Amino acid sequence: MSEKLGVLAIGHGSKLPHNKEIVENVARNIANKHKDVIVKVGFMNMNEPSIADALASFAGTGVTTIAAAPVFLASGIHITKDIPKILGLEEGSNKTVIQIDGKDVTIVYGKPLGGDELIADLVFKRVQEAL
Amino acid sequence: MSEKLGVLAIGHGSKLPHNKEIVENVARNIANKHKDVIVKVGFMNMNEPSIADALASFAGTGVTTIAAAPVFLASGIHITKDIPKILGLEEGSNKTVIQIDGKDVTIVYGKPLGGDELIADLVFKRVQEAL
Repeated sequence: MSEKLGVLAIGHGSKLPHNKEIVENVARNIANKHKDVIVKVGFMNMNEPSIADALASFAGTGVTTIAAAPVFLASGIHITKDIPKILGLEEGSNKTVIQIDGKDVTIVYGKPLGGDELIADLVFKRVQEAL
Repeated sequence: MSEKLGVLAIGHGSKLPHNKEIVENVARNIANKHKDVIVKVGFMNMNEPSIADALASFAGTGVTTIAAAPVFLASGIHITKDIPKILGLEEGSNKTVIQIDGKDVTIVYGKPLGGDELIADLVFKRVQEAL
């Protein structure tokens, strides 16, 4: 069986539309650049689809691994506790296996964006736009 | 008088250390790449220095403009209300003038990171690291 990657872009969720738009944009950009990857979005709270619904929506896609990718800048309680719990990860593990279409699918949980140089470049781009 | 740019990288602040580390990393990366720019960090709440203290710390640097740059992914109430209030911006304006060393210094308020393609690239980089 050939490997097929799914990416679940996970947003915090918000009453305002911006967080959802950003997560959807991120998902669209990834899907456009990586045509062989199945990309879905899911929200921790306040927006739809939920993370659980988003995972279920990989049914029929044939993914063998789903990378659960938090679209969050910093680690915090949502990253260390809330989302792992929703994903069904054991404490301290970033990997689990779920059943989709009666087959094992590995879930791997990625890290938040952090203080990468790309973030600094983007902050400086926003500075230049504001001047 | 020659123009000199200051950048104030604004963080949310957190009880956990990650948000502060990220904002400090972003500031360090900008300072390393743009040697002619004076870069400071300030936090909306929970960490030091405060935004007000950070603005005051540009004294003696000779900056003529300070770009207040939120290190936030999405717009929300902090971006639209709380930080503009701390910066002394009038509602709907992204610019004001303050006095530093007895001289006028223009403050311009930048936008949050948003759903830029760079964010998507970074999310996918984190996906690849997790696999």
